[in-house]
Amino acid sequence: MDEYRGKQVLITGGLGFIGSNLAICLVKSGASVTICDSLEPTCGANSFNIDPVRSDVTVIEADACDIDRMRRLVRGKEYVFSLAGHVSHSESMTDPFSDLRMNTVAPLTVLEACRQENRDARIIYTGTRQCYGRSATLPLVETQPLNPVDVNGINKMAGERYHNVYWMAHGISTVSLRLVNTYGPRQLVKHSRQGFAGWFIRQAIDGEEILIYGDGQQLRDLNYVDDVVNALLLAGVGGTLNGECLNLGGAAPLTLEEFVRVLLKITGKGAFRFVPFPSEARSIDVGNAYSSFENFQSLTGWTPRISIEEGLARTVEYYRQYRAHYW
Amino acid sequence: MDEYRGKQVLITGGLGFIGSNLAICLVKSGASVTICDSLEPTCGANSFNIDPVRSDVTVIEADACDIDRMRRLVRGKEYVFSLAGHVSHSESMTDPFSDLRMNTVAPLTVLEACRQENRDARIIYTGTRQCYGRSATLPLVETQPLNPVDVNGINKMAGERYHNVYWMAHGISTVSLRLVNTYGPRQLVKHSRQGFAGWFIRQAIDGEEILIYGDGQQLRDLNYVDDVVNALLLAGVGGTLNGECLNLGGAAPLTLEEFVRVLLKITGKGAFRFVPFPSEARSIDVGNAYSSFENFQSLTGWTPRISIEEGLARTVEYYRQYRAHYW
Repeated sequence: MDEYRGKQVLITGGLGFIGSNLAICLVKSGASVTICDSLEPTCGANSFNIDPVRSDVTVIEADACDIDRMRRLVRGKEYVFSLAGHVSHSESMTDPFSDLRMNTVAPLTVLEACRQENRDARIIYTGTRQCYGRSATLPLVETQPLNPVDVNGINKMAGERYHNVYWMAHGISTVSLRLVNTYGPRQLVKHSRQGFAGWFIRQAIDGEEILIYGDGQQLRDLNYVDDVVNALLLAGVGGTLNGECLNLGGAAPLTLEEFVRVLLKITGKGAFRFVPFPSEARSIDVGNAYSSFENFQSLTGWTPRISIEEGLARTVEYYRQYRAHYW
Repeated sequence: MDEYRGKQVLITGGLGFIGSNLAICLVKSGASVTICDSLEPTCGANSFNIDPVRSDVTVIEADACDIDRMRRLVRGKEYVFSLAGHVSHSESMTDPFSDLRMNTVAPLTVLEACRQENRDARIIYTGTRQCYGRSATLPLVETQPLNPVDVNGINKMAGERYHNVYWMAHGISTVSLRLVNTYGPRQLVKHSRQGFAGWFIRQAIDGEEILIYGDGQQLRDLNYVDDVVNALLLAGVGGTLNGECLNLGGAAPLTLEEFVRVLLKITGKGAFRFVPFPSEARSIDVGNAYSSFENFQSLTGWTPRISIEEGLARTVEYYRQYRAHYW
C-alpha cells in the first residue's frame, strides 16, 4: 500500500500479535515505524515477532499508560495504531483492574498525548466484536445496542468510544475497528487465555486432544491476521472515516467443530472432544457471534481474502518452524 | 421506608450531594449508616452536608478506589450505595484520567470488594442519562443505543455495565439508575462545573445575571434530590431488579429558560441573558434530553413528587440559611 511510504508511524503494542504483523507490513510499504511496547507479561509481546524487520524499526519499551512517554512518542507521527491492550475475556473477570488499565487508560493516554502534542495524527484503534455481547439477531451490525457480557468487553467499548469523542469534541482524526477472532503467525499461544484459535492451533500441532466447550456448534467468524492488517491499513488511509466504529467480519461463520476439523486435517494429528462449559466460561460466553462488515467494505473495499484452510495452513507452518519462540 | 430499619448500609461518596441526602433519609428510616468519602476536592463532598445526622452515622475517610479499604468496609453490609464519582462533563474533557479513575475504578473497586468479601450485599449504582448522548428520538428509553458524547458519559456507561456483568457472571445483586439533572440542598455550588442547576440557583440567590447558553430552549427533565433518594431506596429493596440499568426521569421536561424563570420568581432577584455556546460546551452538548421512567415506575411504583416550584423554593431556602457552608 503506497500511502504509507515515507510516513512516520507509531504502533503501541507493536511487539504483540497484530501489532508485529502490522509493523512488518508497514516496513515493507516503506513506512518509518516506531514500536512502543510495555512487554507486560499479561499482554502478547514477543520480541521474536519482529525478527524479519528488527533492523528496520525503532523499538521503545514504554507503557502506553505513561502520558509523558506517550507525549514524546506521538510527536511528528502521521499515523498512530493504538493496539496496546489486553485481549483475554477470562482474565478480565479475575483481574478486572489490569484489564481496565490496559483497555481504557492506555488508549485514553494515546488520545490525550495526541491532543496535547500532535492533533494532526491519525489514530487507528482496535475494538472488539465482544462489545455486542449476546445478540438475538445475527450478523452483528453497528446500529444495534452494545451489551458486553464481560469486563473486557466493557473496557474495550469504553476505549472505542473515547475515539469517537476525541473526534467529535477535539477534531482528532480517529477510526475504530471491531475485530472478530483473529488468528495467524505471532499470536501468543503459551496459554489458552488469549482466545481459542491460537490455543487449538498449538494443541493440534502437538497432537493433543482439543477440548471444545459445549456441543461445538457455536458459530464464529475468524480473520487471518494479514486480512486484519490490511483492514487497519485501509482504515488508516480512509480519511473520510472519522470517529467511526466499524465491524470487521470473517468471510463466513463456521462452527468451532468445523474450525477444529479443518485444523486437524492440516496438522494430520490431534483429536477433539466436547466437554461441558466450566461455569466461569459459561457465564461470559456469547453463544453464536459473527459480524457484518458491509459498512467497512463499502467504505474501503476491504474484504477478507485468506480462506480458513489457507490461513490455518500458513499458521501451522509458521509455528512448526519457529516453535521454540512461542511454546 | 421500613425495609431499611436496622440494616447495615454503606454509602460511598456519602458526604456528597445525593449521598448525604440519602444518608439523612436512611438514618431517619432506622438504618445503621456508614459513609465512606475521599473528600477529594474534585468531588462534591462537604462535611456540613451530614450535619443533621452527624452523631448517627459513621464517617470513614477512604478512597473508593482503595480495594483494601473497601474490602473491609463492605463486610457485613446489606446495602451498598455506590455513589462516589465525578459528575462534571466539562472537567472530564480537560482531565479525563481523573474522571476515568472516579467513574470506572471506584465503582469497579466496590464491586470487586463485594465479590471478594460479601457476595450477599445489594449494590445500588447511580448512572446518568448522559450515556445516551444526542438522541434523534425522545423521551430516552432503555432499549435505545448508548452514544455518550463526552468522557464522563463513557466512563459512567462503563461503570453501569460493570454492575450488569457482576450480576450476570458473579450473581452479585446490583441495580443501576440513570439519573437526570438532580438539584436540591447540599449540592456543590462553589463553581459551575457540576451542572447548571446548582450554579443557576446560586447566581439567582446572589442576584446575579445568569448566562444561558444558546437560545435557552433546550429541554431537560430535572429531579429534586428527595425524589432521587426515594428512587434509590426503592431500587435497593426492589429485589427483582438485578443487573438492570433503568431510567429515572422528571415529571415533565422544561426548557432552560423556563427553569430560570421559575427560579428568579422564587428568589425575587437576579436576571438572565442568552449567550452563544462556548465551543468546548457546544462540542459536548446533547441538545434536548429527557427520559422515560415508565419501566422503573412500573417495577417500583416510583414517581417524582416534588414540583419544580416546590423543589426550587426548598433549595433556595436551604442555601439562604446555610450559605456560609456552600459559597
